[in-house]
Amino acid sequence: MTRLSVKELEDLSRDILLRHGFSVDHAQAVTDTIVAGQRDECHSHGLYRLLGIIETLKAGKVIPDAKPGIVDQAPSIVKVDARGGFSQLAFDAGLPILVQKTRDNGIAALAINHCVHFSALWVEIEQITDAGLVALAFTPSQAGVAPEGGHKPVFGTNPIAFGWPRAGKDPFVFDFATSVIARGDIELHRRAGKEIPPGWGVDINGQPSTDPGAVLEGAMRTFGGHKGSALAAMVELVAGPLIGDLTSVESLAWDDGTKSLPHHGELVIALDPRRFLGPAADQHLARAETLFDNIQAQGARLPSQRRYAARKRSLENGVEISEALYSDLQKLLVQVV
Amino acid sequence: MTRLSVKELEDLSRDILLRHGFSVDHAQAVTDTIVAGQRDECHSHGLYRLLGIIETLKAGKVIPDAKPGIVDQAPSIVKVDARGGFSQLAFDAGLPILVQKTRDNGIAALAINHCVHFSALWVEIEQITDAGLVALAFTPSQAGVAPEGGHKPVFGTNPIAFGWPRAGKDPFVFDFATSVIARGDIELHRRAGKEIPPGWGVDINGQPSTDPGAVLEGAMRTFGGHKGSALAAMVELVAGPLIGDLTSVESLAWDDGTKSLPHHGELVIALDPRRFLGPAADQHLARAETLFDNIQAQGARLPSQRRYAARKRSLENGVEISEALYSDLQKLLVQVV
Repeated sequence: MTRLSVKELEDLSRDILLRHGFSVDHAQAVTDTIVAGQRDECHSHGLYRLLGIIETLKAGKVIPDAKPGIVDQAPSIVKVDARGGFSQLAFDAGLPILVQKTRDNGIAALAINHCVHFSALWVEIEQITDAGLVALAFTPSQAGVAPEGGHKPVFGTNPIAFGWPRAGKDPFVFDFATSVIARGDIELHRRAGKEIPPGWGVDINGQPSTDPGAVLEGAMRTFGGHKGSALAAMVELVAGPLIGDLTSVESLAWDDGTKSLPHHGELVIALDPRRFLGPAADQHLARAETLFDNIQAQGARLPSQRRYAARKRSLENGVEISEALYSDLQKLLVQVV
Repeated sequence: MTRLSVKELEDLSRDILLRHGFSVDHAQAVTDTIVAGQRDECHSHGLYRLLGIIETLKAGKVIPDAKPGIVDQAPSIVKVDARGGFSQLAFDAGLPILVQKTRDNGIAALAINHCVHFSALWVEIEQITDAGLVALAFTPSQAGVAPEGGHKPVFGTNPIAFGWPRAGKDPFVFDFATSVIARGDIELHRRAGKEIPPGWGVDINGQPSTDPGAVLEGAMRTFGGHKGSALAAMVELVAGPLIGDLTSVESLAWDDGTKSLPHHGELVIALDPRRFLGPAADQHLARAETLFDNIQAQGARLPSQRRYAARKRSLENGVEISEALYSDLQKLLVQVV
């Protein structure tokens, strides 16, 4: 393993992106997400993602210097057209407007369109809870998940994320796929030559299968049966047609077999507790803390606690990555498209 | 079985409520919900609910002539204080304001406070999709569900409902508990002397149990493991502290052992596709129809289809209720608190 400080991690990511022609602002915005993922030990969203980012660039499926365009769509809606660039810069452009509209009106929405997406949604959610707001986020991906009762891919992994601000504490944040498991976990099983547990997916004929390769060619299942399937459909609708962007089937077609990072849209909703509650806000937010106490006192965990613990460790001691990944990244520093 | 026309069903419900002192507007609003539930063959939300409604009234846990108070809280928030009455009248009072705010601003929220709740959320969701809007609704209930990894009740059955309008078709609507099953289903097993399937709940010592009585004294589980548990917590937060209303633990304490219908709040969010999309709305809503086609063409079902089929049957042929329930309801027509 190779140990890097958070500063070294940031420099490495930024240098690779700049070397491959990303504009300075894209390189920094993407790097901030990669640093957050690696620091929190969400390895699939950390430095590892740089490999996919450069592959996506080589495939011509991301514009490395796209300038996001902001549209003040309605009093409580801001839309940002990422114009084929990575989502981060578009999110950064829309965030202050989303926050202002939410404080002005109580609830507001940010729609990001035509972006290439790879960020975990919690990275964005935490920026909204940092502003004292409640947040929800939804994004489709590329079709690989069948609806309950079916066997053909219609949904992506379609994550749902939620955040609740806590004064002086890490926020309550969850961010999960509506598929039973992340696609990456099935790929890891395939590479390791291991079977996947029953219930994760079906083969191309719709038969339940524990062969990871067969399920990747067939379809994954949603979590929680028909309920998870309903939620996956909701994600398609509100972060697809509602905002004028692609469904997961359409995003897969757009990808055209290049296996690039997904091109699509994202919907973020923010709510301001102070506008809902007025002067009684602190009293009611304290009751939320009682709810958290009731969960934790019985030994159950709040979501994201593992991530916050990893963050603390990483900020103190740096991060560790495998020699193989470090070597691949060093190659990216010298090879250019 | 006794067969009633939808008109007879409506008259029976309204007469019982008026006989027991509900104001004319409450009697009608509650009856509209009961008719919808019975007509759609959601029996637990149909005429059967009148028994619980009258019990709740006898226990002093609902105010039969409460007048809802409307607060124009923020440009995109309307709050309605139900003042201890059933939620329906408060929802009816807030709905036109929610619709107007959503059309004006693109997204808006309705918070209902201090209501007694028994309606299935889809009854409300459909009134919003009828206005061409997308809708989300959340409500806690009374604590009976443990967080994943714990064994003590913190959450209620905490439903989440969603609706998407479809031109010329029944809307896409789902409405499900974040508990693994409805509390009523466990009660039905107890009455029938049947075991419940493994995974539904734990006894008072936190041990998994298939004894319905033990689980009712212990705790139910959430659907979908930690993901369902996270969603249940979200419902507590956004329809509890965020709107200044009770959590499920607080609602159970307020009930004080009377086993009344739950007293708490509800959050409804509406989004206007036409404000998100402008002149391109019809084109993008057509892509949502392609999504539905992709689901149905492989034999999977959209949620609520069974309900819509029942509605069609009921409107043509009336509804059937058991002789026992009909007899209980006839008694309510003559007995007064």
